[in-house]
Formats: sequence, C-alpha cells, structure tokens
Amino acid sequence: MSLLVVGSIGFDTLETPYGKADSVLGGAAVYCGIGASFFADVRVVGVVGEDFAEQHLTFLRAYKLDLDGLEVKPGKTFRWGAKYQADVNIRETLFTDLNVFAAFNPRIPEKYRDSTYVFLGNIQPELQLSVLEQIKQPRLVALDTMNYWIERTPNELRKVLQRVDVLFVNDSEARSLAEDTHLISAIDRIRKMGPRTIIIKKGEHGVLMSHDHSFFSAPGFPLERVCDPTGAGDTFAGGFMGHMAKINRLDQSTFRQAAICGSAMASFACEQFGPERFQTLDDSQIRARVNAFHEMMKFVPW
Amino acid sequence: MSLLVVGSIGFDTLETPYGKADSVLGGAAVYCGIGASFFADVRVVGVVGEDFAEQHLTFLRAYKLDLDGLEVKPGKTFRWGAKYQADVNIRETLFTDLNVFAAFNPRIPEKYRDSTYVFLGNIQPELQLSVLEQIKQPRLVALDTMNYWIERTPNELRKVLQRVDVLFVNDSEARSLAEDTHLISAIDRIRKMGPRTIIIKKGEHGVLMSHDHSFFSAPGFPLERVCDPTGAGDTFAGGFMGHMAKINRLDQSTFRQAAICGSAMASFACEQFGPERFQTLDDSQIRARVNAFHEMMKFVPW
Repeated sequence: MSLLVVGSIGFDTLETPYGKADSVLGGAAVYCGIGASFFADVRVVGVVGEDFAEQHLTFLRAYKLDLDGLEVKPGKTFRWGAKYQADVNIRETLFTDLNVFAAFNPRIPEKYRDSTYVFLGNIQPELQLSVLEQIKQPRLVALDTMNYWIERTPNELRKVLQRVDVLFVNDSEARSLAEDTHLISAIDRIRKMGPRTIIIKKGEHGVLMSHDHSFFSAPGFPLERVCDPTGAGDTFAGGFMGHMAKINRLDQSTFRQAAICGSAMASFACEQFGPERFQTLDDSQIRARVNAFHEMMKFVPW
Repeated sequence: MSLLVVGSIGFDTLETPYGKADSVLGGAAVYCGIGASFFADVRVVGVVGEDFAEQHLTFLRAYKLDLDGLEVKPGKTFRWGAKYQADVNIRETLFTDLNVFAAFNPRIPEKYRDSTYVFLGNIQPELQLSVLEQIKQPRLVALDTMNYWIERTPNELRKVLQRVDVLFVNDSEARSLAEDTHLISAIDRIRKMGPRTIIIKKGEHGVLMSHDHSFFSAPGFPLERVCDPTGAGDTFAGGFMGHMAKINRLDQSTFRQAAICGSAMASFACEQFGPERFQTLDDSQIRARVNAFHEMMKFVPW
C-alpha cells in the first residue's frame, strides 16, 4: 500500500562532535519519506521555496518518492540550524527560519486521497486534522507532535488524536499530554484519547511501544559512532509506517516488526550527516540490521 | 553453587513522591544478597554496629542468607539518607554516616573461601582485591564501582579489574573509566582491562550487556509505579549472579538469562520501599515477570 507523508521539508545546518554539514536536506517529511521508501511507495505533501533546486528534487526522486504533493511557494525554504554537544543527546537550536513553511496549509492532491497509510508530521494539530479530512478512508493514521502544540493548542490536538491510531512522542511529551508525571499511567490516559498504539521515543535507549495493552521494547542500536541524530525520530516513523503499509496487516506481530524496522532505519540515520547514509543503504544492510536487533533481544526462557 | 557477597550493610532513610521510610535495611550486600537468595545460597560479608538488632538479623535470615561473615563492631551501623524527586531518576543524598563501615576491612571466613561465585559491592578497589586474594578459586567474579573510585584510585581499580569477569557500571562511569565519551568504544576499552562481560545499568531504560563482543539489551520493566528505586542496581547484580551460581554454566545463553533475572529482581525492588517487596515475593511471581520480559522483547523476524 501507499504511505502518505505530510510534514516539513527544509535545509538543516548541523554541527556535531564529528563535523559540520551546511544546508543539507532535512525535515520530517524528508526523513520519514526516505525511511519509508525502503518498504513502500511514498507520497509526500510539503512546501518548499524557490531556492529548492533541481538537485534537491533529484535527491528525493532517487528514493522514488512521489513529489506531486510538493508545493513550491514564493520565498525561501524552511531552514533550521542546530549544534550537538559531545553527548549528542543534547542539542541547541541555533536558528529556525520558517520561511514558506510558516504558511503551510497542506493540500492533498486528488490522486493521494485514497491513501490508506498516513503519517502526520509535527505541525499544527488543526492542519493535521485538515489532512485527515481530505483522506477518503485511512486504514492507519500516525501522528507526531511536540510540547509546543501540547501546551498551546491542547483542544485541537485532542480533536485530531481521536482519529489517530499511532502516536509518536518522547516521554516528557507523553507526561505533558496526559498531565501525569508517571509514564505508564500517562500512556493509559493517552490511549483513552484515541491512539491504540503509543510509541515512546527514547533516543539512544530505543522505544517503548504500547499496543492494545501489551508492551514491546526495542533497544537503541549500539552504534560505534553517532555522527548526527538529526531526523532519527522521523526516520523511525518512516521505517515503522513503511513496514505497516508494506505488510498491510494490523496485527500485533506486524506492529512489533514495524517497531524494529523503525529502529533499524533510525540507527542508519545516525551514522552519517543528514540523510546521507541512505544513499548507500540497501535491503541487505537493512535485513542484517534487523537480524542484529533480533540477536540483541533474544534469550531462551528456562 | 554458593554466591559470596561483599559490600555495605546499613540503614537507609528514604523519601520518594510516594512516601517516606525511616531506617530501613539497605546497602549493597543486603540488596544483592536478598536478590540472589531466590536463586542460590548466599554468603554475606559485611560490617554492622552495635545498633544492628536481632530483628535485623531475623529479617536477613528469612532469606536464608549465611551471616557468619557479618562482623559486629563497636559503634553505629552505616546510615544513608536520600530524597527522590517527582522524577525518581533524580535523587539527592541528604546524609552519609559511614560509621563502622569507614573501617570496613572484609575478612573472608575460612568456610567461605571455596566460593566460586563472588560479588564485590562498591567499596575501595584495594579492599575488593583483598577479598579476591582470600578466595581459593573463583569461577565468576563480578564487581560494582563508582566514579569516586574511578577518579581517586584508578590504579587500584585497574589492578582488581584484571581479575574481574563481570563489571556493573552506569554509562557515565563506563565513559569515565575508559576515558572515552563514546559508550560503545568505552566498552571495548574496558574489556581490554579484564572483564569479559560489561553490564551498563541504565535505570528505567534497563541494561545493555556486552558479553564476548555480542550485545544483549534488556529493557526496564514498565512499572505502574516506581515507589523507591533504592538498591535496584545491587538487586540486579543479585538476580544476575544468583542465576549464574544456580545454573553454573558460563555460556552466552546463561548470561542472557541472568540479565533477565537481574532485571526482574530490580523491578520488584522498585515496587515498595527498601527491600520490603521481597517479603511477599515468591518464585511464581519471579517466573511470571521473567515471562513478561520475554513477551515484551519478542518479535518474529519476517
């Protein structure tokens, strides 16, 4: 099945202990789209400015992303800069220039409206809801959000959450959304808001997935070197939703496999700057990493 | 086989968001000893003061701990107080009264010298070494330490590490010991110092075990309520070493099972204040929790 991805597209300027990268392609729709492209057909809805050049389109088309939903608006593309500390879990945002992304109002092309798998990247909840209203009959809707929306637009977020199946948040976002300092009870409260599946992203510690009252824990992959964690969360979402769309079964086993696919793709994202690692990634490497996760997690009960 | 446990024994005064506990039994040897007692015979070496009453001995004997290695010295027992924040991962030490523990010089009773499984709790590295010199032929030696010793007595610590098989540390301790900001390469460096097995304790995020170049990741158990995490690390060590001593095989499969036993026991430790939870714990509950870990970690590769 096809996966519809809606979210930011931009140029990231990154500095980590391992080097710098200037104006590399980034944004939720880019990372999620590329991550998912190794599993399913991906349709992208986003907005870019006039500075988004042919080379950037070529870069994205290499992943067979359907870019008919990409709007080009007068002005500049979204730009974001960040610096990571020696402990790459800590980063400082240096600048955020929303540019054309400030007025992003996702319009879903007619040919995308039959999408059954949908990823709503981190944007205003009312825009996320407007996307869903343009989709005929979604089968699995996933949503990412952040504290900014949880605090400023709680009602709009609650409204869209009622129509969401899978929520991606980190633990502080989960606590804030549920107004509950305790993660496990926070997850229970969030489930009552709509999502059957809640995925707590814990960075280097992996993810904790709550799906229909059962927990699944996927570790972070023990990388020799985390070059740049930018986009790891959205890449996780891409691998996750890509696998769901590919298998097209909503059973427990497929959700767990999807969490491992997401974890594998997120680990690749960290190995090089921006989305660079994906240019040399192939299915056999993904398979090997999935097997490595299996190996890391398995034990024989006695 | 029997497990020898050497470490602190004290009274802890604890405050967490869920209540307070005054002068409950605590210390590395208590938590490790009790945790291990559900799997193997445990011999305890430690020191207490004259205020260590019959009721405390009775409490420990309920776990069939061999207390012939318990020295009673003139003075008071070690006391420690801590307050945990709403996020129980953050705690403040309120006081540390070493008392008789300040002059702890572990003497291993003759009848303990044939111990094959040994846990060296967090004490001065030179004392840890002196324990090993009193043991005839240990089969598996585990050691816990902390930044204090890593920074102040690096040479003594290096010396004892050469004779250690299993090292328990948290990630900042691993980085500091290896003088390497990157965890995975730090683990490689530590392996060259002696331990074949390095277990990174990550609190609520579980543990990462590196054993003979293979990684095993055990998640933290998603507890509804973490009442008091005091002693969770030492309880992990107890469950781990207890299982190793019980099975008495040093293969990959047994190490992984041991990591799950440790994780299960640590999760129980957090459910009530101090070591209270163990008073009502039985084998069927441990079995159920081990199965729950298995359930949380399993997925079917495709």
